[in-house]
Amino acid sequence: MIRALKDACQQVFARTKGMAGTKEGSRQLGRGAGGDISRKIDLVAEKTAISVLRKHGVDATIIAEEAGRIEGKNGFVIIDAIDGTTNATRRMPFYCCSIAFATDFKLSAVTDAAIIDLTTGDLYHAAKGKGAFLNGRRIATASNDDLAVSMNISSVRPEIIERLSPVIMKAKHVRQFGSVALEMCYLARGSLDAYIDFRGKVRPTDIAAAYLIVKEAGGRLNSKTGTELDSDLEIKTRLSFFAAANEEMLGDLSDILIG
Amino acid sequence: MIRALKDACQQVFARTKGMAGTKEGSRQLGRGAGGDISRKIDLVAEKTAISVLRKHGVDATIIAEEAGRIEGKNGFVIIDAIDGTTNATRRMPFYCCSIAFATDFKLSAVTDAAIIDLTTGDLYHAAKGKGAFLNGRRIATASNDDLAVSMNISSVRPEIIERLSPVIMKAKHVRQFGSVALEMCYLARGSLDAYIDFRGKVRPTDIAAAYLIVKEAGGRLNSKTGTELDSDLEIKTRLSFFAAANEEMLGDLSDILIG
Repeated sequence: MIRALKDACQQVFARTKGMAGTKEGSRQLGRGAGGDISRKIDLVAEKTAISVLRKHGVDATIIAEEAGRIEGKNGFVIIDAIDGTTNATRRMPFYCCSIAFATDFKLSAVTDAAIIDLTTGDLYHAAKGKGAFLNGRRIATASNDDLAVSMNISSVRPEIIERLSPVIMKAKHVRQFGSVALEMCYLARGSLDAYIDFRGKVRPTDIAAAYLIVKEAGGRLNSKTGTELDSDLEIKTRLSFFAAANEEMLGDLSDILIG
Repeated sequence: MIRALKDACQQVFARTKGMAGTKEGSRQLGRGAGGDISRKIDLVAEKTAISVLRKHGVDATIIAEEAGRIEGKNGFVIIDAIDGTTNATRRMPFYCCSIAFATDFKLSAVTDAAIIDLTTGDLYHAAKGKGAFLNGRRIATASNDDLAVSMNISSVRPEIIERLSPVIMKAKHVRQFGSVALEMCYLARGSLDAYIDFRGKVRPTDIAAAYLIVKEAGGRLNSKTGTELDSDLEIKTRLSFFAAANEEMLGDLSDILIG
């Protein structure tokens, strides 16, 4: 399975190269099943991913941001063909393709994951119990003294800002690159120490692959209420969560964010 | 002059390639004149820039983040050889080399500017009254309906967050890539619509080149108090400012931030 996911990622990279930031790639073509505006680059990427998976004989039910649910058998493949479409459209070089396989209809049942950085071609993957990798080399989270935290605060209400405020004060470096899946890979490889998104807007499709990659790299994820993050894989589900490099840092963040 | 600045940028790109994220490149070697910890990559980059400028016969007084002030004649060259050192150290691909020339000891006297993206090699430049360019092609700010604003909120106090809160609510996309000079280039090319840094930590060396590039691309910059941004070029000076794609957007931001 992991081979099929990685191949699909690489084909999406090859197929979409040169489309980002072009008028044609950014053309709006209605709305996808996930509710966002679909741009041509989203549709081309997703079509490519699904077609490669089919060629590999993958017959799972597909949950995809644009096409929605396509019934199959033997598990679930969760696709966000372009995570960070705004960045792609505006030529900010942070967006990726994310594909995961789950044996059951929930995040915690993800057993295989692949994410490709669509600017550089860097390929992240993980298989349950076997570790996380970047271009075939094992990666692990780090826990840096000068805390670097990414948080998505786009359009958030003041009460959420207030809740994040103690983390903002504590963090030496606050970042927001605009692609949750790719930033979770940055957490997995030790570039970032934590990630927070309390907007209630993240979809299971956005983080299914990243969820496993972070965990296999040593990171941990909690929901907004402080329980271990899990969720169904419904396209309509929306999540708030925070992730950290390890159990201890997750605990520290929980104390600050939840009390 | 612009030729010397561009050549220096390109040589820094060539010389530092492969150093980012390595133990050797990140080695700490005391503190620079600007007060930050100097890493090997900072020192190598600055030394390269100065040596290339000398070869071009540039005899101006140099104001540089690491070396401080080196007396000369005929104007000032302002160097931030690596803007975004944390990103470089942590393998987050957003950092640049920024070099400007000013006829007088103030931001508004900058007449030539070059910034190179040290990950991609993309070269931005501007000459006063002649426009701003990316890899030789003219660039201009855009004013997008779905407002994308980058703001640096690392370690800021709650009262600053509160002041930014209405902008955060209004912005469709909040970003923070961690290199003010490069993000100002993103503003200049229309990828971002505005940039805000109210921490009171930005140095003239950080934004001397970006200041001209943004202006020549059609953007505008104000200080925290709402006056047009200007400043001496002292290495110890610290600034707070905001920048926007055009006069109108700057006015809207002023209304929100200053009232």
